[in-house]
Amino acid sequence: MKENFLKEALCRSYDDIYDYNGVSGERVASRLGQLAMIGLTKDRGSNRPGYSRAEKEAKDLVSDWMHKAGLDVYMDGAGNVFGRCKGNKVTQPAILCGSHLDSVPNGGHFDGPLGVIAALEVVEAWKETGYNPEKPFEIAVFSDEEGARFNGGLNGSEAIVGKGSLAEKMKLVDGEGRSFSEVLQDVGLSLDSYAGAKRDMEEIELFVEVHIEQGKRLEKENLPCGIVTGIAGPCWLEITFHGEAGHAGNTPMEDRKDALVAAAAFIQTVHTLPQQVSDSAVATIGKMKVKPNGVNVIPGEVSLYVDIRDITQERRDSLVTLVLATANKIAADYKVTVVHDEKMRVAPVPIDEGKQALLVETMEEELIRPYHLPSGAGHDAMILGSEIPVAMLFTRSKEGVSHNPAEWSDLNDCVQTIHVLKKFIEKLNSEN
Amino acid sequence: MKENFLKEALCRSYDDIYDYNGVSGERVASRLGQLAMIGLTKDRGSNRPGYSRAEKEAKDLVSDWMHKAGLDVYMDGAGNVFGRCKGNKVTQPAILCGSHLDSVPNGGHFDGPLGVIAALEVVEAWKETGYNPEKPFEIAVFSDEEGARFNGGLNGSEAIVGKGSLAEKMKLVDGEGRSFSEVLQDVGLSLDSYAGAKRDMEEIELFVEVHIEQGKRLEKENLPCGIVTGIAGPCWLEITFHGEAGHAGNTPMEDRKDALVAAAAFIQTVHTLPQQVSDSAVATIGKMKVKPNGVNVIPGEVSLYVDIRDITQERRDSLVTLVLATANKIAADYKVTVVHDEKMRVAPVPIDEGKQALLVETMEEELIRPYHLPSGAGHDAMILGSEIPVAMLFTRSKEGVSHNPAEWSDLNDCVQTIHVLKKFIEKLNSEN
Repeated sequence: MKENFLKEALCRSYDDIYDYNGVSGERVASRLGQLAMIGLTKDRGSNRPGYSRAEKEAKDLVSDWMHKAGLDVYMDGAGNVFGRCKGNKVTQPAILCGSHLDSVPNGGHFDGPLGVIAALEVVEAWKETGYNPEKPFEIAVFSDEEGARFNGGLNGSEAIVGKGSLAEKMKLVDGEGRSFSEVLQDVGLSLDSYAGAKRDMEEIELFVEVHIEQGKRLEKENLPCGIVTGIAGPCWLEITFHGEAGHAGNTPMEDRKDALVAAAAFIQTVHTLPQQVSDSAVATIGKMKVKPNGVNVIPGEVSLYVDIRDITQERRDSLVTLVLATANKIAADYKVTVVHDEKMRVAPVPIDEGKQALLVETMEEELIRPYHLPSGAGHDAMILGSEIPVAMLFTRSKEGVSHNPAEWSDLNDCVQTIHVLKKFIEKLNSEN
Repeated sequence: MKENFLKEALCRSYDDIYDYNGVSGERVASRLGQLAMIGLTKDRGSNRPGYSRAEKEAKDLVSDWMHKAGLDVYMDGAGNVFGRCKGNKVTQPAILCGSHLDSVPNGGHFDGPLGVIAALEVVEAWKETGYNPEKPFEIAVFSDEEGARFNGGLNGSEAIVGKGSLAEKMKLVDGEGRSFSEVLQDVGLSLDSYAGAKRDMEEIELFVEVHIEQGKRLEKENLPCGIVTGIAGPCWLEITFHGEAGHAGNTPMEDRKDALVAAAAFIQTVHTLPQQVSDSAVATIGKMKVKPNGVNVIPGEVSLYVDIRDITQERRDSLVTLVLATANKIAADYKVTVVHDEKMRVAPVPIDEGKQALLVETMEEELIRPYHLPSGAGHDAMILGSEIPVAMLFTRSKEGVSHNPAEWSDLNDCVQTIHVLKKFIEKLNSEN
């Protein structure tokens, strides 16, 4: 195997004062580094699409570590890998903890792997300190979270909650024209086995996920990690303004019905709306099409997508209402017409306040200022959160960069997050 | 030949009170209708690209009419067709009058043909009334005005003023990968013959062109025709805003550098700038590209084109300066950067005030309220206007529609324009 470049880079600025209670920074760095070698790109990024041989190889390596840590390891029909530690009360619902190992094309080495290695490090630390949890504890590695292959991820976590409609999955076709079923067969799975992966969710008390923030809030606050308050559910609206195309030379300014001028007023206003709703609300216009898109033709039609998010359904939906009202008002002001089409409306997942309070207590004990922040992006915890309680910890991301080889979290921050995670799970074990 | 559908439609609402002084509405309608049959599309539109066999066929038909009207007809090396009436003072500079017969794909039947048929009708009327002009009079049919084939027209008029750089023309390639030279050969021309088409412009006193307005000003004023005050020269700026791409979910509103929000502020402001300069100034943003153009990605880059026009160079250039200052101010306000690239800056062509005054006098005699309006679009008169005096008359366009099968001008309006044109040329013949 090539030199473990990621381990070396991580350890270079590591403070070994964080090696206590059985947690080892070097082990964490070494394992993140070994995973980074699988699907390594020429830019030193990561390329492990969901259900690829690279993702499978990464799961096999983690399975091997879980075996060696004394866990019962099994893979379900959706390719999700679980490593179970029985606990003293074997029949109680388990605490589930983990993330995913797949990546976007030429992505980074922390988005996903950190959550898996953090869960495993908790078990390693328990092994070293002789701690045995009261409740069963399971490490989860979910398949195909990113969805880079099929333009829609979370396929592993959807399978265990039984949310993945098989009829919908059968329609999926990847960039090479291969079906979901064919791709599953590459890694020894099938549509039948996928459908059989649904679990009885009563067997699970809570799912907790460590993930990099993919934003800059923690960096701004100078904190290693933070408590996620909720996972924002996106609503996508396609909004189309219809004006009147015309010759750019022959149409006086006052006779125009320029769809782009109306759309520009809309974009300006939408940018100011989230602050009316909450600090966590966001609205983004990222995709836009101008027709006919000729230099000397007044735009007759502009269609654009608005991505609207907040962590509570009520606030997110009130922002959607504001955005639609703005579209109608601006269309009237600019004498154009407007239509909209709702493309997606996913329910936000709030995070149990009791669990957040327990994380506050834990962080204070670890001498880390408790800081709350929303998750704007979706995660496996969003899917599980529709069925069972979930909690999430974010680790600081350098400059907020993600889905990119430059994605980075300092080992100090990763290890401090693991200490919080470990103590949090131990506190859950002290509850009934 | 199929039924002359256009003639029938034109004559249906024609008032024959306009048949006087040798001008015949029916002849005008019949000829417009016969030209419409050449390159007729299934939408009853016109498809006669520059240097196509269809354009050649239309030129041949007009040449035939010119022969029958007693004119000396010749085609130059650029495919331009001229029909010359010697006049009593054969050595004087000629009055040139005409337009073009090519069209955009699936265009209309008036843009171009009306100007050619109007010039020819003046000669037909003179023939009927026994009038012989003092000065030589030439009908001009310019090749490839629209430029639909090579994305850049005015090739015929450029050839006679010697403005078409042969080096540039040799680079032209059409949509089928054929060069300008190959296309010329289809219709019996060559690059050499094209280069030889340059005329001594001192042989021409004035070029006058009748054209449809392609706008709604005359319709709004309820006038059959109007006097063009100048031909706006376009300046095209490509302006690119660079912000910072980011995840639509994880980037709080206050941390964004959204290139599209800045571009929207720019579009809004640009729309208000022309009125600061003049009534004839226009600025249009018709073409725009958002990068990376993902629904859930904050736009990192937006590039757009601004088309800026006015009929005097001073005002047009001051509008360009205002637009650039606005781009810089908005970039600073929104904490993004901006760059610009000037893609084109064509000099506007002012129209001689003496000739405009003569047209006012003529229209008053014809009991048409004289109305002045700018030409926002380029025409063959724009090219000739860089070398010799030019005048233009616009004929009312129904709803301003052009470059479309629905393009329409009532025969009453066409014929009234011809009366003004005829009397104007006769007045020029009374001058020295």
